[in-house]
Amino acid sequence: MPNQPETSTEAGDVVLRDEDGAIEAGFVARVTSAIEAEDAAALRRLVGDLHEADVGDLIEALDPELRPRLIALLGADFDFTALVEVDDAVREEILDELAPEAVAEGMRDLDSDDAVYILEDLPKDEQDEILEQLPSLDRRALERSLQYPENSAGRRMQSEYVAVPPSWTVGHTIDFLRENEELPERFFEIHVVDADYKLLGAVALDTLLRTRRPTLVADLMDAGRRRVRATDDLEEVARMFERYNLIAAPVVDDGDRLVGVVTVDDVVDVIEEEAEKDIKALGGVTGDEELSDSVWTIARGRFNWLLVNLATAFLASSVLGLFEGELEKMVALAVLAPIVASQGGNAATQTMTIAVRALATRELHDGNAARIVLREVLVGVVNGLAFAVITGVAAAAWFRTVDLGVVIGLAMICNLVAAALGGILVPLVIERFRLDPAVSSGVFVTTITDVVGFFSFLGIASLWFGLK
Amino acid sequence: MPNQPETSTEAGDVVLRDEDGAIEAGFVARVTSAIEAEDAAALRRLVGDLHEADVGDLIEALDPELRPRLIALLGADFDFTALVEVDDAVREEILDELAPEAVAEGMRDLDSDDAVYILEDLPKDEQDEILEQLPSLDRRALERSLQYPENSAGRRMQSEYVAVPPSWTVGHTIDFLRENEELPERFFEIHVVDADYKLLGAVALDTLLRTRRPTLVADLMDAGRRRVRATDDLEEVARMFERYNLIAAPVVDDGDRLVGVVTVDDVVDVIEEEAEKDIKALGGVTGDEELSDSVWTIARGRFNWLLVNLATAFLASSVLGLFEGELEKMVALAVLAPIVASQGGNAATQTMTIAVRALATRELHDGNAARIVLREVLVGVVNGLAFAVITGVAAAAWFRTVDLGVVIGLAMICNLVAAALGGILVPLVIERFRLDPAVSSGVFVTTITDVVGFFSFLGIASLWFGLK
Repeated sequence: MPNQPETSTEAGDVVLRDEDGAIEAGFVARVTSAIEAEDAAALRRLVGDLHEADVGDLIEALDPELRPRLIALLGADFDFTALVEVDDAVREEILDELAPEAVAEGMRDLDSDDAVYILEDLPKDEQDEILEQLPSLDRRALERSLQYPENSAGRRMQSEYVAVPPSWTVGHTIDFLRENEELPERFFEIHVVDADYKLLGAVALDTLLRTRRPTLVADLMDAGRRRVRATDDLEEVARMFERYNLIAAPVVDDGDRLVGVVTVDDVVDVIEEEAEKDIKALGGVTGDEELSDSVWTIARGRFNWLLVNLATAFLASSVLGLFEGELEKMVALAVLAPIVASQGGNAATQTMTIAVRALATRELHDGNAARIVLREVLVGVVNGLAFAVITGVAAAAWFRTVDLGVVIGLAMICNLVAAALGGILVPLVIERFRLDPAVSSGVFVTTITDVVGFFSFLGIASLWFGLK
Repeated sequence: MPNQPETSTEAGDVVLRDEDGAIEAGFVARVTSAIEAEDAAALRRLVGDLHEADVGDLIEALDPELRPRLIALLGADFDFTALVEVDDAVREEILDELAPEAVAEGMRDLDSDDAVYILEDLPKDEQDEILEQLPSLDRRALERSLQYPENSAGRRMQSEYVAVPPSWTVGHTIDFLRENEELPERFFEIHVVDADYKLLGAVALDTLLRTRRPTLVADLMDAGRRRVRATDDLEEVARMFERYNLIAAPVVDDGDRLVGVVTVDDVVDVIEEEAEKDIKALGGVTGDEELSDSVWTIARGRFNWLLVNLATAFLASSVLGLFEGELEKMVALAVLAPIVASQGGNAATQTMTIAVRALATRELHDGNAARIVLREVLVGVVNGLAFAVITGVAAAAWFRTVDLGVVIGLAMICNLVAAALGGILVPLVIERFRLDPAVSSGVFVTTITDVVGFFSFLGIASLWFGLK
């Protein structure tokens, strides 16, 4: 197996991916006709040797109706690992179409972490049905993983690992690796455990390779090797991998016994998902929206956020309503008010983006919060002054009224300072309540800048022009 | 070395990090007093055994003035790798304070990728001064890396690798690893090269370990091993690592000769940076803003974005200005207009966020763009209808005018469809021009929803009420 090419970027004479990395339309068309002609041999030639990630992307590029048919036609040649690579919605649709026996059969050859990943989103009864068909050893490992909370290290760990006693020598360990047929498909370190499977340490493979045969594993192992508890949150695990540049980490249970391994490829996915979730949350989209979701699912998912925003927009407009008299007497105020609000909203979003992200990466914490708040307020003052001048001059020129320029300038300073305070304090307070600042900061912050923007502009105008 | 604990979370009896993972204030205080007392022994006890990532975070937590003094006091016990872990601004400040000889001395023990990382941001003359002090072999490797473009694989690769000829056996290779003192600090695979250093393939260390001594490396190697060109963009490299779950990849030059290795820990940083850049860009902050920047740097960086937004806010307000007569006659229009604009802005941001992210991860491409555009428009219609009813009823109730409800409802449908179209088409068009959609989509999109929001609401009102 190892000397088989992992994949080439070409399958036959067809290019697999275009220059942007998307699956080439011509390739999708050839696969589609092979499926429609039920030509298993042609399909196997096209897809059989592809990397599972390529198969996953191909499945997503196919017409939904053809996806289960591809799997059925490939039969034993279909690597179920490809299902780990597709969107949740796509996977669930496919699994619904396949018989539980076929799924169980396909899952036999999976690494335990991939099997758990596929199983965890299925309804309990389908899970049980599939688990029943698996050999008892595999089943127990999967059941154990599924008992750990969602997004915990125990869920994403691989239950296959290599463990040796500390009394073994390097030579003994290498002989063991050469003779054992049941090793994990890939591994990056050897774990050292006592008779109760308590983790004593780990040896990186390069260390093992550069050490002579008689050396004891006990003398070679890194006893301080960072370990992960099975119940640890995956985001914390990801931070640890990132901070210490880890490739793999042993997972232990409450009794410090080795139960699995988390590898960096899973962590890369967690980091990507976490950033994705933050980006979406800041944009007002729920984290589980996927590109393959239906119009209805998406519209419903986005509705809630828009509804909350509508309420805050009415709140802001009610501030305008307080000044109906002023607006009637001087319509220029109605024309200019949105400028003050919008500029505040944008400045607040800048501050909030930095705050949310710095909280997520733990760069912003109690130790430096006061300094960062002060800094943001100063930035608000500096840019407030700058935009007071610019906006003031522009407004005065537009409406040929110097006083209007002074009023909008003063309001601009107020609102950019409010924007700075809101943009930094709101995420900090939300984080303090152990909620996710990425999700809800935006509503509060733009409400603040809309209300302060309208109120300061119209309030100052009312005082300045004596419009009552 | 391998059996030394990498770090414990405690140094002496002081806890290093608090529960959020930030460096504990008490620990910073102890380090601070050791530096101020110039007590090198105490400092060494506190910091000497820490992991470089912990030292990096500690440096950032220290008063800027103490940072170079910590390095000077630790002398040869300071691991320069820690400087890779700190913000660019912090690193530059520290390097400015240290003598070039001290920097060159500290860089001798660095992996080449870390050395390049530290060197690349320095002015050319300081780079040369440091390079001159290095042994010629190290210097040539660094100079070669620095010649590759910024953000290329060649810049971030490690020039140290293990390469063997295909004619060697497993046994010969293992003996070589045991006897060679000059191996990289960490490695994950053995590369197989011909006499000209052309890359023939790679052997994962676990494969090497489970194979018997007489087997030829040529028979064991993965000849299709994914490779990276030194000139490849790091973002493309990161996508490849992520897609195919790689741990390391060989880097080759234009002649297919092996020049280095890129490892997953660097790729994790690239993925994090890339997501960070997108998040910041969507929030209107330049990608290189760092938490340690000064008020002035930050204010200037954010000014440009706010200036562009101010221009678009004036543009939107000029639409309001077109309807001065209507606003004067019916001040309710001035109060309600921002609601239509804001709801459109939020809906457009949702669509744009999804589009920008899907373009970055290559999930959105020519093959599915038409389908996604259609889907977004349909989502716009569905939510447009929903919010037409909700807003219409609320506005009619507020101002006790059914007609006002009808007008704002119709405007809401127009603007949410415009929001959907703008939110998806603007990023697609920007991407087509090979620009970064995360950076500039926001301005265009909210300009569209402000203008369409004001124009549709006041235009429909003008027609409906005959306000001319």
